[in-house]
Amino acid sequence: MAQQKKMVDAITSMDEDFAKWYTDVCKKAELIEYTSVKGCMVIRPYGYAIWENIQRILDGMFKETGHENVCMPMFIPESLLQKEKDHVEGFAPECAWVTYGGSERLEERLCVRPTSETLFCEHFKNVVHSHRDLPKLYNQWVSVVRWEKTTRPFLRSREFLWQEGHTLHATAEEAIEETERMLGVYTKFCQESLAIPVVQGQKTESDKFAGAERTYCIEALMHDGKALQAGTSHYFGDGFAKAFEIQFSNKENQLTYPHQTSWGMTTRLIGAIIMTHGDDNGLVLPPAVAPIQAIVVPIAQHKEGILDKANELKDRLAKVCRAKIDDSDNSPGWKFAEYEMKGVPVRVEIGPKDIENNQCVLVTRHNREKTFVSLDNVEEEVLKKLEEVKEGIYNNALENRERRTYIAKTLDDITRQLDENGDGFVKAMWCGSEECEDKVKEITGVGSRCIPFDQEQLSDKCVCCGKPAKHMLYWGKAY
Amino acid sequence: MAQQKKMVDAITSMDEDFAKWYTDVCKKAELIEYTSVKGCMVIRPYGYAIWENIQRILDGMFKETGHENVCMPMFIPESLLQKEKDHVEGFAPECAWVTYGGSERLEERLCVRPTSETLFCEHFKNVVHSHRDLPKLYNQWVSVVRWEKTTRPFLRSREFLWQEGHTLHATAEEAIEETERMLGVYTKFCQESLAIPVVQGQKTESDKFAGAERTYCIEALMHDGKALQAGTSHYFGDGFAKAFEIQFSNKENQLTYPHQTSWGMTTRLIGAIIMTHGDDNGLVLPPAVAPIQAIVVPIAQHKEGILDKANELKDRLAKVCRAKIDDSDNSPGWKFAEYEMKGVPVRVEIGPKDIENNQCVLVTRHNREKTFVSLDNVEEEVLKKLEEVKEGIYNNALENRERRTYIAKTLDDITRQLDENGDGFVKAMWCGSEECEDKVKEITGVGSRCIPFDQEQLSDKCVCCGKPAKHMLYWGKAY
Repeated sequence: MAQQKKMVDAITSMDEDFAKWYTDVCKKAELIEYTSVKGCMVIRPYGYAIWENIQRILDGMFKETGHENVCMPMFIPESLLQKEKDHVEGFAPECAWVTYGGSERLEERLCVRPTSETLFCEHFKNVVHSHRDLPKLYNQWVSVVRWEKTTRPFLRSREFLWQEGHTLHATAEEAIEETERMLGVYTKFCQESLAIPVVQGQKTESDKFAGAERTYCIEALMHDGKALQAGTSHYFGDGFAKAFEIQFSNKENQLTYPHQTSWGMTTRLIGAIIMTHGDDNGLVLPPAVAPIQAIVVPIAQHKEGILDKANELKDRLAKVCRAKIDDSDNSPGWKFAEYEMKGVPVRVEIGPKDIENNQCVLVTRHNREKTFVSLDNVEEEVLKKLEEVKEGIYNNALENRERRTYIAKTLDDITRQLDENGDGFVKAMWCGSEECEDKVKEITGVGSRCIPFDQEQLSDKCVCCGKPAKHMLYWGKAY
Repeated sequence: MAQQKKMVDAITSMDEDFAKWYTDVCKKAELIEYTSVKGCMVIRPYGYAIWENIQRILDGMFKETGHENVCMPMFIPESLLQKEKDHVEGFAPECAWVTYGGSERLEERLCVRPTSETLFCEHFKNVVHSHRDLPKLYNQWVSVVRWEKTTRPFLRSREFLWQEGHTLHATAEEAIEETERMLGVYTKFCQESLAIPVVQGQKTESDKFAGAERTYCIEALMHDGKALQAGTSHYFGDGFAKAFEIQFSNKENQLTYPHQTSWGMTTRLIGAIIMTHGDDNGLVLPPAVAPIQAIVVPIAQHKEGILDKANELKDRLAKVCRAKIDDSDNSPGWKFAEYEMKGVPVRVEIGPKDIENNQCVLVTRHNREKTFVSLDNVEEEVLKKLEEVKEGIYNNALENRERRTYIAKTLDDITRQLDENGDGFVKAMWCGSEECEDKVKEITGVGSRCIPFDQEQLSDKCVCCGKPAKHMLYWGKAY
């Protein structure tokens, strides 16, 4: 137990310093390692395996909804980026610029894609001519670069991995439907696969994606009461199509501008998993994306027959879930701490007494609950436990969010509740003006997160100016 | 049939202009589209689906041999690239350099990775301390950039997709074993999944990877008699470890330098597939990586019941392979040409007479052979045909290579045979000197491809200088 103690001591506690706890978990659970390029990290095997699971599930959902994967270049010529005014204004300040190829200065500098709308537009112009070419339902899995000043692993890195969906449609209605459909896919994925409850909504005008007509988003609340945008889905109207002169002949044989969407989710999600479910012992992983779902730890493994039985158990479990065994020389206590740190949902202990009684012990990571189960139907029992972990961590996260969601009718209300109860979501009415949005942030420190789809009529008046309210908004500090 | 004719006419024939035939296939089969950045292409859904199949199979083989996926940053600081002398000399001339982040000039310029040895070394130094940390068996799926002057889709592009394996071992023996193991994996993949026969061998000193002690390779012969390097596996010794000061304490508790390998395969493989198996009607895809393995084409589909039967057939086939139906308004002739162009291995035709006779027609792409088969066991029959296509195209490729492999004892021999029979592999003895290697190339136009593992004693003398021969070499023109 000495070693276990040592490992647990090695992470800062959440209450002491949440930011430090977060980076401790990233490092000690071997998700990432820093590099000599600021803001660019190595995603280590355990971290990347989580991303592979995220990819596999999301990719399946994209394909089920009719999308195809493609791959665009990573470079965007400056002139191409400049074609859509709002877009270039939003992104140019954070582009990494390539100016030399070998020893030759390039005639036109190239940015490393911060996002690929302009590349997809150039391509759409080449391949879309008739209504028969529509819709185009494309996605790509790549990395993008944004030259951020302040960086943190997964949450804000200069290079990050993501998927970006880009679709083109004959009508505005179809494109809006797609934008909403993909927000639905994201919501389902977060809630069912990551066990993270989210609020669905729309960004305010000032908070939209550069070049979008509407930006939908899903917002999650982290353990410390700060919000994290988990995914966005943008409706572009025909703005990009006009800027890039993409036209198609419709069924009436008239040249028409198509309507466009894009939507993305990133390695940020791993940050969201850590800060939603983690605790002072380390990671807690949602079973759907956990690289190891069940870890078998033999007890008194030097005794005859134990390792054989433990391996047999692992083999049986490996048929129904991602199961592994740790038969290294480390002590059971060390192993318990190690796999708790790594957030493995279910630990399976088996020792001499268990074998005598034809049983083993299942310990669920999130609540450390121990259950003795018969070896006869251990597969079923482990699957039940995985389901329990998923539900348990979802409910914990939901409870945390509900406890930290405040209703405010005045600016004082906001300040007081945040002071008294800590950071969280604030629900308050808003008149719709950017002025009030800015003022709320200036005075209370919380910015607008989204106009939720589920509107409530908390009062008639804007929380800031007292004029007639247009929407209820979620406000909060954000990652 | 008018439309079919039209489509087929649209590709240049191989004999007329092989290079143009190649780019025609790339475009008309909708594998790629050009972009405004020279040498960077869009990989379209059909092309990317081939790559996804390649990835899935190879990734499975890597994981079976104990490798884990990771993700390194895409940027390498100039000082990091410079740490290993041979390596930087080889790659610096073709690096794309980032010099600005937003509007600020970077203190040190960053290259977009042309390959990631230096990044892996930096990481290994951080995470490897003891023999218990070894071996490290890593791989990553990313894109890399090399600023080539002459570019061609898949074969030589400024950005390309690849996997790069990077492993670190306690001993030279283990590292060499790994280098050979991965060449074996590549060979198996090429021959069994891509139906491309390859020659296994070692590169000469002058042709090694920059920084490697040994470079193993597999070489394939394209339809036009030019060679294509399909994969490489490098043994680095402890050269990089010394340059990057990576040390571990061995079992005797002494600080020791580990031994290293790297190995890679790229989207070039798609070029190899096109040029090995393609014909004047377009692509011919190996079943293992074909996005569509069987395409169902209904005949007289306006007649009652045909579409129902065809769809039923497609649903049955979809359970055993990647099957699709084309029930569009296009004529059967147009569809035949379209899916021949796209290289679909098996076409399944079903019309009124077939239904009457409880049968359908299977047409194999590579030889256009027609077989009538009973609907009762059509799944089995289609799977048999897929196997036939695989074997058929492998044998065709092997026959092409054998027909175009020449034995030469003098320089005149080389020139004469190439003149008489066209480009191909030349097997000839070599004294081992770089001088002769260069001279052979200068005089005959063929460079050294590899020292094959399967050595033959064709004569005692070097084909060039007549001095005692050390090795038999494969020579050829290369992509």
